[in-house]
Amino acid sequence: MLTQFKTIALIGKYASPQMEVTLPQLADYLRALGHEVLIAHNTADQLGLLHQATAELSEIGERADLAVVLGGDGTMLSIARMLVAHDVPLVGVNQGRLGFLTDVPVETMQENLTAILAGEYVTEQRLLLHTEIVRAGETIFSACAFNDVVVSKGGMGRLIEFEAVIDGEFVYSQRSDGLVIATPTGSTAYALSAGGPILHPTLEAFVLVPICAHTLAARPIVVNSHALVELHLVHADDASVHFDGQRQWDIQIGDVVRISRAPKKITLLHPKNYSYYKTLREKLYWGKKL
Amino acid sequence: MLTQFKTIALIGKYASPQMEVTLPQLADYLRALGHEVLIAHNTADQLGLLHQATAELSEIGERADLAVVLGGDGTMLSIARMLVAHDVPLVGVNQGRLGFLTDVPVETMQENLTAILAGEYVTEQRLLLHTEIVRAGETIFSACAFNDVVVSKGGMGRLIEFEAVIDGEFVYSQRSDGLVIATPTGSTAYALSAGGPILHPTLEAFVLVPICAHTLAARPIVVNSHALVELHLVHADDASVHFDGQRQWDIQIGDVVRISRAPKKITLLHPKNYSYYKTLREKLYWGKKL
Amino acid sequence: MLTQFKTIALIGKYASPQMEVTLPQLADYLRALGHEVLIAHNTADQLGLLHQATAELSEIGERADLAVVLGGDGTMLSIARMLVAHDVPLVGVNQGRLGFLTDVPVETMQENLTAILAGEYVTEQRLLLHTEIVRAGETIFSACAFNDVVVSKGGMGRLIEFEAVIDGEFVYSQRSDGLVIATPTGSTAYALSAGGPILHPTLEAFVLVPICAHTLAARPIVVNSHALVELHLVHADDASVHFDGQRQWDIQIGDVVRISRAPKKITLLHPKNYSYYKTLREKLYWGKKL
Amino acid sequence: MLTQFKTIALIGKYASPQMEVTLPQLADYLRALGHEVLIAHNTADQLGLLHQATAELSEIGERADLAVVLGGDGTMLSIARMLVAHDVPLVGVNQGRLGFLTDVPVETMQENLTAILAGEYVTEQRLLLHTEIVRAGETIFSACAFNDVVVSKGGMGRLIEFEAVIDGEFVYSQRSDGLVIATPTGSTAYALSAGGPILHPTLEAFVLVPICAHTLAARPIVVNSHALVELHLVHADDASVHFDGQRQWDIQIGDVVRISRAPKKITLLHPKNYSYYKTLREKLYWGKKL
Repeated sequence: MLTQFKTIALIGKYASPQMEVTLPQLADYLRALGHEVLIAHNTADQLGLLHQATAELSEIGERADLAVVLGGDGTMLSIARMLVAHDVPLVGVNQGRLGFLTDVPVETMQENLTAILAGEYVTEQRLLLHTEIVRAGETIFSACAFNDVVVSKGGMGRLIEFEAVIDGEFVYSQRSDGLVIATPTGSTAYALSAGGPILHPTLEAFVLVPICAHTLAARPIVVNSHALVELHLVHADDASVHFDGQRQWDIQIGDVVRISRAPKKITLLHPKNYSYYKTLREKLYWGKKL
Repeated sequence: MLTQFKTIALIGKYASPQMEVTLPQLADYLRALGHEVLIAHNTADQLGLLHQATAELSEIGERADLAVVLGGDGTMLSIARMLVAHDVPLVGVNQGRLGFLTDVPVETMQENLTAILAGEYVTEQRLLLHTEIVRAGETIFSACAFNDVVVSKGGMGRLIEFEAVIDGEFVYSQRSDGLVIATPTGSTAYALSAGGPILHPTLEAFVLVPICAHTLAARPIVVNSHALVELHLVHADDASVHFDGQRQWDIQIGDVVRISRAPKKITLLHPKNYSYYKTLREKLYWGKKL
Repeated sequence: MLTQFKTIALIGKYASPQMEVTLPQLADYLRALGHEVLIAHNTADQLGLLHQATAELSEIGERADLAVVLGGDGTMLSIARMLVAHDVPLVGVNQGRLGFLTDVPVETMQENLTAILAGEYVTEQRLLLHTEIVRAGETIFSACAFNDVVVSKGGMGRLIEFEAVIDGEFVYSQRSDGLVIATPTGSTAYALSAGGPILHPTLEAFVLVPICAHTLAARPIVVNSHALVELHLVHADDASVHFDGQRQWDIQIGDVVRISRAPKKITLLHPKNYSYYKTLREKLYWGKKL
Repeated sequence: MLTQFKTIALIGKYASPQMEVTLPQLADYLRALGHEVLIAHNTADQLGLLHQATAELSEIGERADLAVVLGGDGTMLSIARMLVAHDVPLVGVNQGRLGFLTDVPVETMQENLTAILAGEYVTEQRLLLHTEIVRAGETIFSACAFNDVVVSKGGMGRLIEFEAVIDGEFVYSQRSDGLVIATPTGSTAYALSAGGPILHPTLEAFVLVPICAHTLAARPIVVNSHALVELHLVHADDASVHFDGQRQWDIQIGDVVRISRAPKKITLLHPKNYSYYKTLREKLYWGKKL
């Protein structure tokens, strides 16, 4: 197994004092098992570990065979966006509350990782979205999203009007607070609050969920992941596009937001006993078995 | 009937060239019937009618026996907020699309008004909301709303956290995009888009509608109009309070938004054949009689 | 206080072995305090207490100053329907899970009742619905409901079509699985599952909630409790009317279901620390205070 | 092109007098073009066309190269279920209102068919569901569905309780009026009324939509079409399973409803200008282009 995951990167949540103990412990543990350990430079800096082997994220993408992320789902989202062009599988370790993406509890981190390194894991491929913002025919911004792209009204609070075009075909005009375009991963995040369905992670699909649409008959649409979605901003006092709720870009009337699947998927590794539906039940407070 | 509505104010939609013809015509018509006509100063200014009898809105509140508003529902909202302290009944004339508040079509304006002035009308009393924003124990802002008060996230797009307290009792904590507090009048506006119910105008009630709440079990609550609703902002990157979607005030963590019914109601006059449910059907595109 | 609640009726959930111990204990306790105790005849029969003073429900309505119901919300619903013509206040004791109507836990039953009998209580008046089913001009059935009246499709599973008329005015035609008409009390029961809002118990209102309406723009409407709602069944393979989910009457095409508020309200007594919103939070699993 | 669609079957809506003129006309027209025409035996019987070449549906499945269905979506559903084991593509002709499946208007039937027969068409493959009802380990009933399988409460109106298991994994227990399992085709039918999302026809997926679930956090889940969904009926007064709203089978406590994709898809042919999104807009009354 050492051949499979020779070099392991450790990446911690930004500015999280909780991992001062756990992350160095994990580094030691993995080195003791014979792995090369690279600590993300930012993380090492925050934790005073710059004397250990560190690497920038881009370097991690090149050199690591596995990246272990300690933090919450938010950390996983940003790391996944940055590593999506590479082929490094990710393991998410949560430091408290079970996450959709960070399903390994810090308490059982060593056992779980030992098993994963021994080849005892479940693999999941997850879709990401690639977005281009086009103004007057030029791409002025592009970004990736793991959960969702949200086109929304700004701070003035007035609804926006846009036209949705899918694969070149006019779909609808909408006056609303905005629209969430979510991957299966993001379908349990903001899209769910906006009234969207849950998409199983194996689906080659994404979902368009209107936010407070003016038309009462507006409904979420699940489209094929190979669809090209274009949103033409027709009217707005102020509007912006949000990526995983972590990055933001302001748009103007006439701009086109062009969304398609990212060329590569992200690979997640889970312990063998991982169950997507169990996570759903716990996160959404669904009832127990009768 | 002249005794009842001796002085009639005419108020036009801001900067609307459509009424250049209709408003002076209506003024002439009413004067010909023997009424004193006061044109809102702003309206007269825009239409070049400053040579006619004009009055500021505050003066209209004092002197007019009836105010005829030409415009759309948006104009009615702002005029109603400004006249709520007075006892001037309003008639709403729409210049195109039927409104919830502007139910007299401009085409039949003269017939409808003649009938109304002859005592042929239906009276409706409508609730408004009074809001105070309290910071460190001091009221730093107060405003009225006819449709709704919306406490919402700002342009950064991150959800806000607040506690709702009704009549001194803790109701819930909520992480969401915001909360709409709507009157029966406002229940068919933004609150409806956010998933709220329709409240019949005769109800002494208002409704709290969460916007994209993080908790899936969050639901709209209709409360007694005599309730005092207090929203304590617990967490937000940026947040603001919107009044009828027309005025806005930024709030900070720790601020309390205190909402109660306004001391006075607004009186609307409708033609005899007015039907609230007919308006609903037309505006919401409900099906026809089978 | 003995003067206020001299005679106390005890009514148990139908065929519930749990109360074999608690109900006789409570009877003894109340007699020891000097109250006359009447056990509902059915309850006494089931618990082998026919040697104690018993009474039919109609007699309880005449003679008791207070009725204590041991069971769940379902028991409260049926007892309330039967006692609504009388003026006996009710106290609900739950035998396990907190109920919306049965808010006194069996564990603290004696303390809570002692306090209530001493005048330490909160009073709530709750609306009921009165329904008549009219066929060819004749009322062929009438019944009361505390939670809701549900007009619904039958076992064949095909949608029904009906026209809703409120106060003589046509409101809409609807093709749906049915319609829930719920009181504030019932707004947290089936109506909530069907997408309706929560109505605070003090509201003089009821709510019409469509069940899986064919028209996507159909929405719940909250109407004044003084409204007369008439539903005309226009098309159905089979259809029936349900009262609190406990009674049922089949209807045919052409039948009219006429719903209005019952002439009298039911009075509930709660311990002083009763909080409607606290019950909501617990029953709906809303989040805790931040 | 005659080689491609040599033999064409014509199938009419059951007992529909409207097609007395159109269907024989179409038969003559197609014969004049040189095609062999088979009229479904039932249809021929109803229209007095037994002297023409007729065939049972099973024979049509074997012999026809194309089946033209005149009727509405309901007719298409039942014909598709019957022909799914064969490889006959279908064209749907509507006799009035545009259908999701019957998108050729009767008025332009001849032009549209002429073009389709000339190879000017768009092909769509649509998923169907296969259901088995298992009692005590034995399959006691099986059926196909094109739109949806609905497990629901019966005429007594009491909610049912079941456990959902997907690919052998427990997903949730649910107390509700029932559950809709819909194909992409069925996602715009009953599932939509129950709050489900729209699934684009190209998706290899189906959706589970709860009907009036008791748990407020229940949400629609879109699963991979290769999933095996099993619903274990845990409690019910009466319950049944509905297939496309056209067939029905009663189930009992302990029964398992086992749902998976049907082995074969149905092929639909559309005129070249067919647009799924255009149909959506028209059927759902979505707004026009701004």
